[in-house]
Amino acid sequence: MSRNHAIEFQPTGCRGVCKEDQSILECARKLGVDILSLCGGSGTCGKCRVQLLSGKTSAVTSNELDRLSVPERANDFRLACQAYCLGDAKIHVPAESFSTQQRIQVEGLELSCRPDPSVRFFSVKPPRPTLTDHRADDQRVLDELEKQQQTAFHTVDLEVLREASSILRSSKWEVWAGIRGDEVVGLWSRDIPPLGLAIDLGTTKIAAYLVDLHDARTLASKGAMNPQISFGEDVMTRLVRAKLSGEDAVRLSKMISEEINRLCTDLCAESGADPKQIVDAVVVGNTAMHHLFLLLPVHGLSVSPYVPTVRYPLDLKAREVGIRIAPGAYVHFLPNVAGFVGADHVATLLATSAWQTHDVVLVMDIGTNTEICLIRSGNKTSVSCPSGPTFEGAHIKHGMRASLGAIEHVRLVEDRVEYVTIGGGRPVGLCGSGILDAIAQLRLAGIVDSSGRIGDHALVRDHNGQREFVVVGEDERAGREAITVTQQDVRQLQLAKGAIAAGIRVLLEAAGCSGEEIGMVIIGGAFGSYIDIASAITIGMLPDLSPDHFIQVGNTAGLGAKLALVSLAKRKEAASIAREVAYIELAAFPGFAQIFAQSTLLGRACFHSGETNGN
Amino acid sequence: MSRNHAIEFQPTGCRGVCKEDQSILECARKLGVDILSLCGGSGTCGKCRVQLLSGKTSAVTSNELDRLSVPERANDFRLACQAYCLGDAKIHVPAESFSTQQRIQVEGLELSCRPDPSVRFFSVKPPRPTLTDHRADDQRVLDELEKQQQTAFHTVDLEVLREASSILRSSKWEVWAGIRGDEVVGLWSRDIPPLGLAIDLGTTKIAAYLVDLHDARTLASKGAMNPQISFGEDVMTRLVRAKLSGEDAVRLSKMISEEINRLCTDLCAESGADPKQIVDAVVVGNTAMHHLFLLLPVHGLSVSPYVPTVRYPLDLKAREVGIRIAPGAYVHFLPNVAGFVGADHVATLLATSAWQTHDVVLVMDIGTNTEICLIRSGNKTSVSCPSGPTFEGAHIKHGMRASLGAIEHVRLVEDRVEYVTIGGGRPVGLCGSGILDAIAQLRLAGIVDSSGRIGDHALVRDHNGQREFVVVGEDERAGREAITVTQQDVRQLQLAKGAIAAGIRVLLEAAGCSGEEIGMVIIGGAFGSYIDIASAITIGMLPDLSPDHFIQVGNTAGLGAKLALVSLAKRKEAASIAREVAYIELAAFPGFAQIFAQSTLLGRACFHSGETNGN
Repeated sequence: MSRNHAIEFQPTGCRGVCKEDQSILECARKLGVDILSLCGGSGTCGKCRVQLLSGKTSAVTSNELDRLSVPERANDFRLACQAYCLGDAKIHVPAESFSTQQRIQVEGLELSCRPDPSVRFFSVKPPRPTLTDHRADDQRVLDELEKQQQTAFHTVDLEVLREASSILRSSKWEVWAGIRGDEVVGLWSRDIPPLGLAIDLGTTKIAAYLVDLHDARTLASKGAMNPQISFGEDVMTRLVRAKLSGEDAVRLSKMISEEINRLCTDLCAESGADPKQIVDAVVVGNTAMHHLFLLLPVHGLSVSPYVPTVRYPLDLKAREVGIRIAPGAYVHFLPNVAGFVGADHVATLLATSAWQTHDVVLVMDIGTNTEICLIRSGNKTSVSCPSGPTFEGAHIKHGMRASLGAIEHVRLVEDRVEYVTIGGGRPVGLCGSGILDAIAQLRLAGIVDSSGRIGDHALVRDHNGQREFVVVGEDERAGREAITVTQQDVRQLQLAKGAIAAGIRVLLEAAGCSGEEIGMVIIGGAFGSYIDIASAITIGMLPDLSPDHFIQVGNTAGLGAKLALVSLAKRKEAASIAREVAYIELAAFPGFAQIFAQSTLLGRACFHSGETNGN
Repeated sequence: MSRNHAIEFQPTGCRGVCKEDQSILECARKLGVDILSLCGGSGTCGKCRVQLLSGKTSAVTSNELDRLSVPERANDFRLACQAYCLGDAKIHVPAESFSTQQRIQVEGLELSCRPDPSVRFFSVKPPRPTLTDHRADDQRVLDELEKQQQTAFHTVDLEVLREASSILRSSKWEVWAGIRGDEVVGLWSRDIPPLGLAIDLGTTKIAAYLVDLHDARTLASKGAMNPQISFGEDVMTRLVRAKLSGEDAVRLSKMISEEINRLCTDLCAESGADPKQIVDAVVVGNTAMHHLFLLLPVHGLSVSPYVPTVRYPLDLKAREVGIRIAPGAYVHFLPNVAGFVGADHVATLLATSAWQTHDVVLVMDIGTNTEICLIRSGNKTSVSCPSGPTFEGAHIKHGMRASLGAIEHVRLVEDRVEYVTIGGGRPVGLCGSGILDAIAQLRLAGIVDSSGRIGDHALVRDHNGQREFVVVGEDERAGREAITVTQQDVRQLQLAKGAIAAGIRVLLEAAGCSGEEIGMVIIGGAFGSYIDIASAITIGMLPDLSPDHFIQVGNTAGLGAKLALVSLAKRKEAASIAREVAYIELAAFPGFAQIFAQSTLLGRACFHSGETNGN
């Protein structure tokens, strides 16, 4: 029998019971305290730092000795995944250990397309039954529709049939019917504005949009963290969990449907709508999220050559995937391209098609995986670059996600660091754009060379056997550890930016074209809209083109989902895009190792074939 | 807190626990002892007689005083629905109180149609994935099918997708695909014989047929009692239960899907098949069974003008209605005609179409409801006659269903009764055909007159204030009560046969034709195949035509279901039949009350308009 202890988390004040065989991390999750964890609780990411305010906990583990500094250990800091309560305890969760409060980009450029939704609405007034007209309810509606539309509709969704009789009678035989193809997918007793739901299902974030299907207007949008994060930050951890345990696979899938339902309820509350008004939905996500949500086998995605189970678009009843909207509504899943080029990339290409006005265009969505498409004379070729979670702040000593207190911009002004934090308050760590900025500034100042080595400088110090550049000193942090960029951090960024740059190089080489021919670079995705393009050019992550070549367009995947939601023509276009896109598996590209090694160098580059950058 | 007592049922020897607040009937059901109950446990049908062998039970109720004879009460007979255990008890269930062991007709004439099933099978050998061919699993299969069939297939069922990856790999990339329309509904690793399941869902019985879809051969057939009987024998009781309680509605629906799954498992075991081989199913049933199974609202069916919710045929995923066969399989529900003319009648008309060789044909399915169709020059008109459960032995003093020991045939030979029982053993009661025979014999012998009054005869006696004819005397029954036909029983039969005869008269009158014009009477259904046609003519239930006009064809509804299962053309024909059939609501037919009154008279009749029968 395991014993129970009272536990309290600060500053949220959340209280509950912690079992002795339950780590503080597990307990926090159960109580709804969202503590960050990138490694899934294995003690290796060091992100789940908490401070013991009172009470007794289990002994410090070797993982903690590796991850926690001496002052931290002296101040009772622990990794929540490694510590167990041995009595009642009070725990402080520092801001940087919270996984919520994160900035989630849901905004994007607005829609510009003629609404042509999959569900059409008709007013129907069937006659009441009498002793001589004893037709069934379904027949009354379908006969009336046929008379009105001069075509026969044959099917009524089973759930719609189940509520049809009462709706017909309560509405006094005057209803509105929603038709999809030749199927009645909804009956309403009044003329509701038909709504649609667009979902961009990301590895880290889920963005949801409530759209009026009549005029394609976005009524409300909202983002949430992907709750699967509690199973581990990166896709591969989740794929392996789903592969090893059917139960975990079901749990991972349910986490998504439940979060979508929550978002849907919130969006409706905000807009004064009812989820039953939502007659259609579109989901886009990377292939792994797509498969995890649909409980599809993920073995193929976790081993080379990374073959997905499903590429084709799917039309499924919303209820079959656990989404609670109108009873007969469908969810359309946009098609995937390959194991690591998913429906979100297809949605991005759909959304950005309007801006692809040049002969050579690069469309990229920067994230844990960065998908890049080179479009040349209409021919599309894509790659997926494993840029890793560096831009989410993972594997970076003082990295954090773009939450309150994250340093998002850094400038070196006469050997002094100036920075901007999210929310403008005291700094707690560096988010992706901050790390990118910092290293670009170090490179510009010559503190870091093209190989990434940190040289000497007043702000450079040796600490715990590693060179590091101090962004915010201890003095400024009231005695807490300084925020620094370490040699190891620079290496991490080189790997991330190298993956992206190598992807661009492979695409150019395969198309036989040079970086200078690129007429436009369209950058989508949350991270992509916050980065400083000049910094990205400085370190050679993006080609050295003039600023007017770049366009940062926000959440293009979400925008693509909205387009596919309001327009059947756009949905068709998405299917064509997925068919047309040629996919290059980087690992199989001749000479890739060399291209990648070259791409890790820090410095402006034109992305010519054979060019050595870092000059 | 209710106390528990040990209970034992004989002769089955079934033992268990009986709670004090649980009637013996409820307890028996929980333990799987199928005690007959027609009234749903309200103490009014008197069918659930059991004998207390030892132990103490609650006091005898007024319902029991009405239903149990003095000798029965003296011998500790109780109504199981009225009695509660007050201590450990041993209970004897007499043969006539068992609802199982009943003869269920599953046989019918064999199929004669060209197989043209909805699912077609193709062998597919997609190439394995490589580093340069990283197409998704679904695409591999669909591309290969397209190459082979020169048409594009777009959809793979979600459940099939979920198991596709492992089937493709375990079969070494050589699979068989089952296609329905343009959807892949199954993948198999070997060339299985594709099977289909036909279900005739009756109020009392469920008949199931396992059919080879290649050659339309019936591999196995099996019947079971409809488990909804525990909610009450007649349809209306169940409709009201479903209407009043959503929970009961769900339970009634689940009872059906679970019984179908049991039948399916048994049929497969018998044929050495796997339920996953079953790629298609067809269900026919009366409108009430159809609605109860599909959890459709039944309010309309329970009040005049008896409007169903659904008339159109439905194609639903088997899993959506709880039937466990091949993962992507559909169930086709044949269309209904009206509130009391269901898909089973459509199936009967489909099955009997081959025999409808005369200009005027009567097709009837005799049961609790008797559906009759008059076909004249191809024009079909149907009525539903509320013949009631008399033919199932209900509301008849010594009535019982066609189980072991039921008297099924009766002859009066020189003032002596000869009879035949089912199974040939000792008589326990009269089943429908026995009652029909007995009353026809009484009418022939002049013991009963055309008004139904029992006159004087050596075997007629007054008993408990009622006249009755003794079929089996006390002496022959070792002291147990005599089996008799009472004046009340004759009245019951008059109502039942009157309903049928009135239905035929209305059809003839509406068509403006006389009984003599009928070229053929096709009688389907279990009861219809056991009745003595001569007896039915004698009492005026069927028109007075020569014997070669009648054909008793067995379970035509089941046969129709099988036809619709193996042939898409037949499925289409069924939809046409349902559309073509004109329905007459008897209650609304001018002069119906008079027609009905006239039809209750006992005696041969030609069913001329305005004729007075009983001569």
